[in-house]
Amino acid sequence: MNALPELTDIRAAAARIAPHAVVTPVLRSAALDALAGAHLHFKCEQLQRGGAFKFRGACNAVWSLSDEEAAHGVVTHSSGNHGNALALAAATRGIQAHVVVPEGAVKAKVDAIARAGATLHRCAPTQAAREAMCAAVQAQTGATLVHPYADARVMAGQGTIALELLRQVPSLEVIVAPVGGGGLMSGIAIAAHALNPELGLVAAEPAGADDAARSLAANTRVTSVVPDTVCDGLRALVGEPNLAALRAHQVSIVTVTDAEAVAAMRLVWSELKQVVEVSSATVLAAVLKAPGRFAGREVGLVVTGGNVDLDALPW
Amino acid sequence: MNALPELTDIRAAAARIAPHAVVTPVLRSAALDALAGAHLHFKCEQLQRGGAFKFRGACNAVWSLSDEEAAHGVVTHSSGNHGNALALAAATRGIQAHVVVPEGAVKAKVDAIARAGATLHRCAPTQAAREAMCAAVQAQTGATLVHPYADARVMAGQGTIALELLRQVPSLEVIVAPVGGGGLMSGIAIAAHALNPELGLVAAEPAGADDAARSLAANTRVTSVVPDTVCDGLRALVGEPNLAALRAHQVSIVTVTDAEAVAAMRLVWSELKQVVEVSSATVLAAVLKAPGRFAGREVGLVVTGGNVDLDALPW
Repeated sequence: MNALPELTDIRAAAARIAPHAVVTPVLRSAALDALAGAHLHFKCEQLQRGGAFKFRGACNAVWSLSDEEAAHGVVTHSSGNHGNALALAAATRGIQAHVVVPEGAVKAKVDAIARAGATLHRCAPTQAAREAMCAAVQAQTGATLVHPYADARVMAGQGTIALELLRQVPSLEVIVAPVGGGGLMSGIAIAAHALNPELGLVAAEPAGADDAARSLAANTRVTSVVPDTVCDGLRALVGEPNLAALRAHQVSIVTVTDAEAVAAMRLVWSELKQVVEVSSATVLAAVLKAPGRFAGREVGLVVTGGNVDLDALPW
Repeated sequence: MNALPELTDIRAAAARIAPHAVVTPVLRSAALDALAGAHLHFKCEQLQRGGAFKFRGACNAVWSLSDEEAAHGVVTHSSGNHGNALALAAATRGIQAHVVVPEGAVKAKVDAIARAGATLHRCAPTQAAREAMCAAVQAQTGATLVHPYADARVMAGQGTIALELLRQVPSLEVIVAPVGGGGLMSGIAIAAHALNPELGLVAAEPAGADDAARSLAANTRVTSVVPDTVCDGLRALVGEPNLAALRAHQVSIVTVTDAEAVAAMRLVWSELKQVVEVSSATVLAAVLKAPGRFAGREVGLVVTGGNVDLDALPW
């Protein structure tokens, strides 16, 4: 597979993950439609296995391996939803997942990864330490690295969301999804435009981690942004292949402040009755912030996850 | 119509409300199944119009009226989900809803009722004052009283949940729903047993408002219970016709403490990712409390509503 997946790869991913993943429902709210002045269709990945869309990419990666590769397991360095998703995906194939966890990671998330059956490897909380530990695990075990977003198998898995959503809502005119590392947005852009080149594509990005917006504006990958946002799922810098896909598909970015994301999160909880992460709420925040782009249109919003600490709500 | 609806009334209600009500989805959770040792199917009425099942009964009542009756509007005394549901239902027919609101009612709920277009009538916070004000509004306007639960049209509307749920999950063996006034449980019992007399029926009731359990045990309606529970939607005493239906259909009751309901609410939020009221969580609390009754079975749990004050969570 190339650096970027194509529609055939995304279709193959859909078939590969079908026995394991949830076809998540699309929910609507008359109150939110009225507020936005548009027809909003919320694709509910908080109802995906593991509580986040990440299971799709991880599952496609795990089931893309040959039997010999699979026998050595998989490894990643993510203490968040991707680590958990990879642990769950590995379990569906009965293979070992190694997850490198930096000191100081959220205990509840680490516990969930352990419960899912992964082997944890502790390291210092720096990017260098994480990569070194990952390399050490690979060297020791022969496990395949499954990067959270700069991986064509992962992008293809995330792109299956667009296939499902366009089947569920064929009249869709725009899709809005959050962008962090860009695995989700790139997969969706490739799948959606292959099916309908006229579809509008909007990425919601926290203002405090707006490297994708800066990178598109500068026409080169900007790596100087130091993320400072409550949206913990969107702090990663956009990946190189992911950025290329965003550029190729003319994804436009709406940046939202933390306050806007938190207000939108509260709206999703109160009106849609869904427990969603603040990172997920950036999509509604973007629609409410740039109403001119969405007025009267059929808009798909990808709600990415619902793994929230119920004892530490941001309002 | 008699004091209790029959299957034909419930089928007619389903047709009557179909243009206005949501066919709510059924959600599942592998983690909750494992915890319960049973196959749990959550019927999501928090996704109903107005955020609660109450819209079904109110809508059926509103659309059961003749044009001449409808022209005079409808009235009720409920500052909770039923008042809001009646306001929304009246709006679907373009008629007036009068809602009697006792002083001290939760402001957010009263505001929602006003936003839905109802005319509010304030009164002192006693049962006598509420009934007197209701009677006064009826005398002035000729509006039809729509009681929250002791009303066959309302019971028939709530019973449509069972028709839907058994269509969505034909293999169901038991249905669990909360009991307060009993409008929901009686409608469900009548509909469910008409379709499948073998279905088990379980009502979840707060220990601090266990008048239905006491009434069934004593074989007479016990009205001496002074409700003391965090489950604000289940404080009403069971109605006379509702109790008769519970008895006729051999509904068994599992009482749960407030702590058990709150713990179950938290589980529904974290595992099912649904914002539900504590009253709604009594059904899961009941299943977890009496595992022997449900082990290995296909269990339908009616989640009644999701209108929660996000600034005052009970944990």
